[in-house]
Amino acid sequence: MILAKNPKKTEWKSLTQRPELKQQNLQQLVNEVFQAIQEEGDKAVLSYTKIFDKADIKEMRVTPEEVDIACKRIPDDLKAAIRLAAENIEKFHRAQISSGVKVETMPGVSCWQETRAIERVGIYIPGGSAPLFSTVLMLAIPAQIAGCREIVLCTPPNLEGEIHPAILFAARHAGVSQIFRAGGIQAIGSMTFGTESIPKVDKIFGPGNQYVTAAKQRATQLGVAIDMPAGPSELLVLADDSANAQFVVSDLLSQAEHGPDSQVICLVKSESLIFKVQEELSAQLPLLPRKEIARQAMQHSKLILMEDDQACLDFINEYAPEHFILCVENESFYLNGLINAGSVFIGNYTPESAGDYASGTNHTLPTNGFAKSFSGVSTDSFCKKISFQKITAEGIKRIGPAIELMAEAEQLTAHRMAVTKRLLSL
Amino acid sequence: MILAKNPKKTEWKSLTQRPELKQQNLQQLVNEVFQAIQEEGDKAVLSYTKIFDKADIKEMRVTPEEVDIACKRIPDDLKAAIRLAAENIEKFHRAQISSGVKVETMPGVSCWQETRAIERVGIYIPGGSAPLFSTVLMLAIPAQIAGCREIVLCTPPNLEGEIHPAILFAARHAGVSQIFRAGGIQAIGSMTFGTESIPKVDKIFGPGNQYVTAAKQRATQLGVAIDMPAGPSELLVLADDSANAQFVVSDLLSQAEHGPDSQVICLVKSESLIFKVQEELSAQLPLLPRKEIARQAMQHSKLILMEDDQACLDFINEYAPEHFILCVENESFYLNGLINAGSVFIGNYTPESAGDYASGTNHTLPTNGFAKSFSGVSTDSFCKKISFQKITAEGIKRIGPAIELMAEAEQLTAHRMAVTKRLLSL
Repeated sequence: MILAKNPKKTEWKSLTQRPELKQQNLQQLVNEVFQAIQEEGDKAVLSYTKIFDKADIKEMRVTPEEVDIACKRIPDDLKAAIRLAAENIEKFHRAQISSGVKVETMPGVSCWQETRAIERVGIYIPGGSAPLFSTVLMLAIPAQIAGCREIVLCTPPNLEGEIHPAILFAARHAGVSQIFRAGGIQAIGSMTFGTESIPKVDKIFGPGNQYVTAAKQRATQLGVAIDMPAGPSELLVLADDSANAQFVVSDLLSQAEHGPDSQVICLVKSESLIFKVQEELSAQLPLLPRKEIARQAMQHSKLILMEDDQACLDFINEYAPEHFILCVENESFYLNGLINAGSVFIGNYTPESAGDYASGTNHTLPTNGFAKSFSGVSTDSFCKKISFQKITAEGIKRIGPAIELMAEAEQLTAHRMAVTKRLLSL
Repeated sequence: MILAKNPKKTEWKSLTQRPELKQQNLQQLVNEVFQAIQEEGDKAVLSYTKIFDKADIKEMRVTPEEVDIACKRIPDDLKAAIRLAAENIEKFHRAQISSGVKVETMPGVSCWQETRAIERVGIYIPGGSAPLFSTVLMLAIPAQIAGCREIVLCTPPNLEGEIHPAILFAARHAGVSQIFRAGGIQAIGSMTFGTESIPKVDKIFGPGNQYVTAAKQRATQLGVAIDMPAGPSELLVLADDSANAQFVVSDLLSQAEHGPDSQVICLVKSESLIFKVQEELSAQLPLLPRKEIARQAMQHSKLILMEDDQACLDFINEYAPEHFILCVENESFYLNGLINAGSVFIGNYTPESAGDYASGTNHTLPTNGFAKSFSGVSTDSFCKKISFQKITAEGIKRIGPAIELMAEAEQLTAHRMAVTKRLLSL
């Protein structure tokens, strides 16, 4: 870890900077795949699946019978764990349903807001060695609570053309409507245009590599919304002497094992913690199966001593971490002053893993400083709000003259006339 | 208007299609201007203001004294109208403040959500002949209600280097912190990077031409959020014999006068209305100052007879209009079945102009079918939600084993270890 002690404010810029990503220009490849899908549908998707995923499949749709078989292959204890996590996620996301707002802004002028589910949503789950079934829960459960009519899931098949059974079990448990073997650019393209098999959706959710990210960006230009801009995962831990260095380091490492570009910052309030953290790191890191990945991530991560509380708080708000573990005695000072973060974990017994899997909060969160302007995924992400208004004859008499004046001042005479004609009729 | 009678479902695709926009490739120009602003700051902005806006100004910042003078130039009746509108907008947007959610998902596992204002927001107000002070109210008032610390407004100066006094009055009334004479790409670039004068912001709001739209798209790639994708304004009116054809046509025209690419659809429930609408159109259109613009917009607009209620509702949801005027006897059928729209105006005395200016709802709404997945601007647009969790020793004992199982099944051992170490310590 890179060590800094009470850095001056001028050094903050480099300390809060994210590792720069080599932005490959994937636009041309994305355009090519998208065009082929638009023209040839399923045929193009199958052919790209063969090229990119090295899987020669005939049928993208996963049948209910295949899901039945997969469910039987999941050990009972894992099933129980997934059910427990799903229940907590459901409780927290169901509480987020908003009741709507109704106001009579003037006598005879009623304005209200109602929530509607987005009709068709797409969930992308990356492939690779580890089956990210937890992300299935995090996206499909709020979609179902919101009332989305169609919840489509795409995930790449392995070399044998199969999807990990835990993903299928989680998808069924969380109410996914249709599951497809399709990955990468071709999955995003299919959900953008629709093919013979895969339905077009209104909004696409889920993580992915740089190909998926570039494809999601392109989708937004074609009228499909996406959850949020993607970036490598991040964690900032703030610890004082009340924190347990062993736990702190286990949290740092659980972030670092995600990928070599994971970003970890550990802010400590005392010199003694620097030594303890370094010592624990040397002890814990070599024992991990993914130690090589974690080691690379830790190389550009930072261990910072910052004794002043206000400076600490300002630094955290400036960095705007995706995950923020707060393990200090005066936690209320930080909770009250916190402005920018994705998700906050408080105290010695609240590891980030709890929110990643099972406590109930969502793990799809804004990275790369986007916590300054974006929220994590919530039930709201699967809804939109429509405003309504109804004005009575009495109401338009009251409000009409103001509208006429403003419309005329903006030189929009037809806007004024729409009111004038109504007023003249009364 | 293009006339269609009870069109078959196969014809819907072309009837709901938006006019295709010539997408000029402005990326290179945007990159050039952005780079110059990043390197030279204010100097570059002033130089582009001279080139693009033909205004030779020395100072971008508008002083409080200039605003004082502008306020004196606004007629009292317009001031009163703006104040009335502001009051209604404030009432409706203040009611949207959410109270937060707290749930104990399991004993010892507390999860909650809190709202924080986005710290620094930028508002862009286009120039041109008409001063869009109503948009100042629609964006600055919810920003202030949300509690944004800094509300920056950029708008291009006229040839004399001045800003219309109504914009300055509205900006002061709505609590804008700083106002700058800067327009187009250079305004968006300034708020993206920050210059000596203009602060960097976290999210940019507001309408604009294709240059502004391209610049806002680029801003999102540089870590700044934007309100929503932009497109030409739209209106769909649904009318039966209870509607007043004179009012209906005045509403169609108030949409059509926005620009030649404005999109207007009039759905009627009876043959007799077709004739009445056409007749009123011939009578009202020639009297408008902006008749040439309105005529062009009406040319690609549609007048559709659709007798079946369910078909009508399906068509509206498929089109997903930005503005939807509902003027029929069985309005509850449509209100219950409506899924996709930006803002809805109900009954004979609720013209779209009411929502454009003064009733209280927001007029920044999703166009181009984006009402399927986006909400209009609301107080929420200026906030983000942070999730929090705190787990007790008892709580981690209950939830820990499930997390361990799930993390191990996803092959993320460090995630599991973060829990195991805590469980072992208890």
